[in-house]
Amino acid sequence: MRATVMHGAGDVRIEAVPDASIVNPTDAVIRVTRACICGSDLWPYQSMKPSEAGQRIGHEAIGVVEAVGRDVRSIKVGDFVIMPFAFSDGTCTFCHEHLYTSCVHGGFFGAGEVAGAQAEAVRVPYADGTLYALKVHADEASMASLLTLSDVMGTGHHAARMAQVGPGKIAAVVGDGAVGLCGVIAAKRLGAKQIILLGRHPDRIALGRAFGATDIVSERGEEAIERVRELTGGFGAHSVLECVGHGESANTAILITRPGGHLGRVGVPQQETLPSSLPAFFRNITIGGGPAPVRAYIEELLPDVLEGRIEPGRVFDRVTNLDGVPQGYRDMNDRKAIKVMVKP
Amino acid sequence: MRATVMHGAGDVRIEAVPDASIVNPTDAVIRVTRACICGSDLWPYQSMKPSEAGQRIGHEAIGVVEAVGRDVRSIKVGDFVIMPFAFSDGTCTFCHEHLYTSCVHGGFFGAGEVAGAQAEAVRVPYADGTLYALKVHADEASMASLLTLSDVMGTGHHAARMAQVGPGKIAAVVGDGAVGLCGVIAAKRLGAKQIILLGRHPDRIALGRAFGATDIVSERGEEAIERVRELTGGFGAHSVLECVGHGESANTAILITRPGGHLGRVGVPQQETLPSSLPAFFRNITIGGGPAPVRAYIEELLPDVLEGRIEPGRVFDRVTNLDGVPQGYRDMNDRKAIKVMVKP
Repeated sequence: MRATVMHGAGDVRIEAVPDASIVNPTDAVIRVTRACICGSDLWPYQSMKPSEAGQRIGHEAIGVVEAVGRDVRSIKVGDFVIMPFAFSDGTCTFCHEHLYTSCVHGGFFGAGEVAGAQAEAVRVPYADGTLYALKVHADEASMASLLTLSDVMGTGHHAARMAQVGPGKIAAVVGDGAVGLCGVIAAKRLGAKQIILLGRHPDRIALGRAFGATDIVSERGEEAIERVRELTGGFGAHSVLECVGHGESANTAILITRPGGHLGRVGVPQQETLPSSLPAFFRNITIGGGPAPVRAYIEELLPDVLEGRIEPGRVFDRVTNLDGVPQGYRDMNDRKAIKVMVKP
Repeated sequence: MRATVMHGAGDVRIEAVPDASIVNPTDAVIRVTRACICGSDLWPYQSMKPSEAGQRIGHEAIGVVEAVGRDVRSIKVGDFVIMPFAFSDGTCTFCHEHLYTSCVHGGFFGAGEVAGAQAEAVRVPYADGTLYALKVHADEASMASLLTLSDVMGTGHHAARMAQVGPGKIAAVVGDGAVGLCGVIAAKRLGAKQIILLGRHPDRIALGRAFGATDIVSERGEEAIERVRELTGGFGAHSVLECVGHGESANTAILITRPGGHLGRVGVPQQETLPSSLPAFFRNITIGGGPAPVRAYIEELLPDVLEGRIEPGRVFDRVTNLDGVPQGYRDMNDRKAIKVMVKP
């Protein structure tokens, strides 16, 4: 079969690889009908050391189950499934608490032994605990949005939940990438009365407005902080969603949070320390977030997707086959595309 | 009158100063019946640059109202009051949310123009919003514990609340100072089933056990983290109270928090950044806390103090008059005393 392999910074190749197959009796193999490129895939795309063996990449997919191991109980061949970006056994103490991304036997697709999903097919460990099988028929038009439930929409929702967005609150979203845009959807869905999007790319801002952003702040650093304060009566936002992961964006996020407010961070941090510990402390700001347990959110978000109340699939502004994946990385890295969907 | 003035690191003096008096019509003056020395007073005691003018210090007190300004409504001369360490107007948006330590007109005693409470008397801004007048008679035996409601017990309680301590949870308290010990009381009061105290001073540990600590970890750094993991089935504590403020203690606190757990920090941070941003992120740890809005907690904690169900006043192991205050600072700084009470 064919799959995407990253060999170093800027070096993404489509290669012939052994067919995905059952390794453990709890595995499933799914034929990938749609995958995509994640903003977090751009971190290794910008920094990975050259590697001849390379790393199979991609962690977001929907597809159809082609094979299951002998211990798989709830997932069946032919099921249409959403594959969360993290696999999880479904039985450990953290899975019972719905924190699937801390599963004691879990891990991430496209890391180590577990291959990536930008491929024709992918092996899924702990199929029963990992996959979400759709019980109802979904039409073609909803596929893009269903795909976002494997990561980006669930991640934006996690940021909003950790930021304690709720009715009547002021939310601010740092970052106009696909996660930030889904954060806008989540903030609106949870009832925020004002949603400030911090971003500077016209195409993304337009989509952010369509998703419910009420104010746009395109300044950076100190000026952005000042502008958000102006927009919020001087105090900042109750709920801030950090959807980038840079030190500067984390700093901005903390400094635009209202005293007593909540910050939900989902951008993978690129630094060992968190800035502005003192302002966060003196303002009693609560900082939460991390890898989103998207498996836990599918049930909640699915009806809104299927009934068209939210359309997170609109974050995809390019569609390609596997051959177009290297160009997709370039386009996302150059900010020419918001998010690229892959139909293998 | 006489008051404590800090003139630099290690230089605390008792001096004759002008009598405390009404400056603004919303002020009260209270005669201090009991004050005390705080662990946070030791930060300037260790680092303050020499100053001829000096800084009036102390922010914890109980006492009797001697005078009120013409706009004071609810506080009357003769009232016995608890003075929270922060003053607050009681009317702003943050006071309405009970986050008194973010009052837009508020501030701290012993900072800038507002004198400290290690003195015969102290001026209290916004008396109606700041002071808590006791409606019932309190006997002599409860005075020490009432004094702790001005800061240390309320601060330990804030750490426990921010750490989401609740019935059946595992709590860990980093730091065996008076705040940490009150954190143990708070964790037990809120129903924690296991309370791990990280500390190494025999007198403090003994008191911690009396307050409800079930396990003591006296190791430091990596060894402490390892030991807490052993005591908690490998995962860490659900609720961690950071009661020191050093980078190392913050790091330990993060690394002993269970995935999905909560960390409440009340030790004043001594660094601009928070360590271990990546482990905190990848484990979905939520970090909250800050200056405790102790004014908000008095109502909740008072019945337990008055009826003897909690005895936070036991953290005071020395009592002195004003003349003994400089020695009190030395003793606390040398860890010879846990916390020193001052009867001016």
